[in-house]
Amino acid sequence: MTVNRQILLASRPTGWPTDANFKLVESPLPQPADGQVLVRSHYLSLDPYMRSRMDAAKSYAKSAEIGEVMIGGAVGEVIESKSAKLAKGEFVVGSLGWQEYAVADAAMLMKVDTRLAPPSVYLGTLGMPGVTAWVGLIDICQPKADETVVVSAASGAVGSVVGQLAKSRGCRTVGIAGGPKKCEYVVKELGFDACVDYKAGNLHHDLKDATPGGVDVYFENVGGETLDAVLTRMNPFSRIAVCGLISQYNTSDQYGVKNLRSVLINRVKMQGFIVSDRMELWPAALKELGTLFAQGKLKYRETVADGLASAPAAFLGMLRGENLGKQVVKLV
Amino acid sequence: MTVNRQILLASRPTGWPTDANFKLVESPLPQPADGQVLVRSHYLSLDPYMRSRMDAAKSYAKSAEIGEVMIGGAVGEVIESKSAKLAKGEFVVGSLGWQEYAVADAAMLMKVDTRLAPPSVYLGTLGMPGVTAWVGLIDICQPKADETVVVSAASGAVGSVVGQLAKSRGCRTVGIAGGPKKCEYVVKELGFDACVDYKAGNLHHDLKDATPGGVDVYFENVGGETLDAVLTRMNPFSRIAVCGLISQYNTSDQYGVKNLRSVLINRVKMQGFIVSDRMELWPAALKELGTLFAQGKLKYRETVADGLASAPAAFLGMLRGENLGKQVVKLV
Repeated sequence: MTVNRQILLASRPTGWPTDANFKLVESPLPQPADGQVLVRSHYLSLDPYMRSRMDAAKSYAKSAEIGEVMIGGAVGEVIESKSAKLAKGEFVVGSLGWQEYAVADAAMLMKVDTRLAPPSVYLGTLGMPGVTAWVGLIDICQPKADETVVVSAASGAVGSVVGQLAKSRGCRTVGIAGGPKKCEYVVKELGFDACVDYKAGNLHHDLKDATPGGVDVYFENVGGETLDAVLTRMNPFSRIAVCGLISQYNTSDQYGVKNLRSVLINRVKMQGFIVSDRMELWPAALKELGTLFAQGKLKYRETVADGLASAPAAFLGMLRGENLGKQVVKLV
Repeated sequence: MTVNRQILLASRPTGWPTDANFKLVESPLPQPADGQVLVRSHYLSLDPYMRSRMDAAKSYAKSAEIGEVMIGGAVGEVIESKSAKLAKGEFVVGSLGWQEYAVADAAMLMKVDTRLAPPSVYLGTLGMPGVTAWVGLIDICQPKADETVVVSAASGAVGSVVGQLAKSRGCRTVGIAGGPKKCEYVVKELGFDACVDYKAGNLHHDLKDATPGGVDVYFENVGGETLDAVLTRMNPFSRIAVCGLISQYNTSDQYGVKNLRSVLINRVKMQGFIVSDRMELWPAALKELGTLFAQGKLKYRETVADGLASAPAAFLGMLRGENLGKQVVKLV
C-alpha cells in the first residue's frame, strides 16, 4: 500500500506567507467511488491566485480552509478508474490540490493530449494561465492590429502568452518584467517588441520610451506603482484587463493609485476578471492556443521545483518573482 | 447698435481658479453670415467639465484658449436668421460661450420646445447633463431592477437625473452629497431611497449602512476618497461609470486610491466616458428623459446667478459645491 503525501494550509499568513503556514502530512491512499478516478499527479501548478485563497478575506473564490489540502491545479495519470469517461493510463488536468495522489469526479477533469505537448504545459500555456491570457486579452480588451499591447509580469505563465497572442494578431507588444534576464527572455525568446525592466528604477521614463504611440491595451498582473505608471500612457478608448495585482497581495498597506484621471480623460475601460467565470470561452481559447502552440508560436519556459516538499518554498519564490516562466512542482 | 458682453479666459489657473483668470469685455454685436443665426442667450450653463478646459494639459477635449471667449453651453432666442432651418423667435441650445450674444451655424444648434419645459431646463435635465446621466447609467452600467445604484454629487445636474432615472427603472437609489440640506433634497424631493452626507465625517460607515446589499452600479462624479469608499461596497460583476472627478480638478496632489483590488475581486467594469463621444445615443436619451419629464418624474432645482458678470463667481461656487441642482446664469 502506498502512502499519500499532502500539504495542508496550517495557518493564515499576515503579509508575506512563510513555511510555517504550510504543513506536510502523510495519509492513506484515497479510493475512488463510482464515477471517480484516482490520479497520480505528475506536476503541481503554483499560481499567484493561491495567495488570495490563503486569506480569510472575501475574494472571488472560496478561501482555502485551515487544516485542508492547499488548493491548486495538477496534471497527472489516471491509475485507477471507476468511470467510463476515463481509462487507466490517460492524462488529465484538474483541481487536484497540493498532494501526490487525488481522487476526483471524472466529470471535473479534462483529458490532455500528451502528444501535442508535455503534461506540464497543460498547467501553463495550454491550461488555466493560457486561457486567462486569452480571455483578458481577446474577450475583454479586443486588440486590433497595430495597437500597442502592454503586459506586466511579462515573463510569467500568463504574461508570456498575452504577448505572443497579441503578436500573432498583429499588435505591437511591450512587456514589463523585473531584471535584465527576464527582459532579455521576453524580447529575444518570446518575441516582444520591447521590455521595460521595472527594477532598473526608471519605470516612468522607460515605459514612455517603449510606448511612443501610447498604450491601447494593458493586461495587468501586478498593480501598484506599475499600474500608476501605465495609466499615464493610456490612449483614448484604451482597455485595461485586471487579471492580478500581485504587488499588493502580501501587504495591508495598499498602494494609492493617483492617475485614475486617465480613465476619465481617455475614456478607458478597466475590467477585472477571473477565468473560471468564463467557462464558455475555454473551447475557443484552447483551440487558438493549441493551433499556435503546434505552429511553434507559443514559446514557454518552466521553473521546476523537485518534489512535493519543495512546493512552499517554490510558491514563496514565485511571489517574490524568482521564477522564470511557469512555476511547477515535479512530483513523478 | 447693441454691444455684446463676453467673458474671456484671461489666464490659466494653478489649482483653484480665481476671478483673475477671467476678463469681462465688450465687443461689437456679431453679424450672421449665410447659414448662420444670431442668438441672444437667455441662460448660460456652468458645468464642472469647464474647469478641465481651462488647463493647457491634455484632456478629452480641446483646451479653452487664453484671450478667447470661455467655452460653454447656452440657451437663447434666435433674433436674426440667415438660415432656412431656424426662424427668428425660435429657442435653441448650443455651444455659444460665456457671452450675451453669439453667432452660430444653424446646423450646430438644437431647437428646443419651450412648451414642454422652460428654456433653462435644456441646459440641465433635458440637455447635456441629462443625456450624460443617461449614457453613463443606461449604456455603460445597464442597471437591472432591484439593483442598488449609487451616485455621487447626487443633488447636482447630472446626479439628480441618474437617481430618478434609476428609480424609474426599478432600482434602489443611494445618493452621496455634501451637507444635510442637499441630502434632504435628494431623498425628499428627488425620491432617492437614501443619501449619505460625506461631510458628516463617517463616509465609510454611513455608506455601509445605506447599502446593506452592496453596490451594483456606481455613477462617479467626484473621485478621491469617495471612490475609495464606494469601491469597498462593490458587488460581484458591478459597474462603475466614471463621469467626473471633481474633487481632483483643483489640485496637483492627486488622491491615491487604495481599494482597486475590489475591481479584481469583484470583476468590476469601470469605464470613463464623455457624452459628446456618443452622439448616436442622444435621441434615445432625450426621448426617455422628455417622457419622464412630462410625467413629472424628473424633478429639478436650479441655482440661478444674475447677469453675465456673475458667471465667474458662480462657477467657482459650483466647484466648491455651493449650488443646489443645476447652476445657470440668467442673462435676460
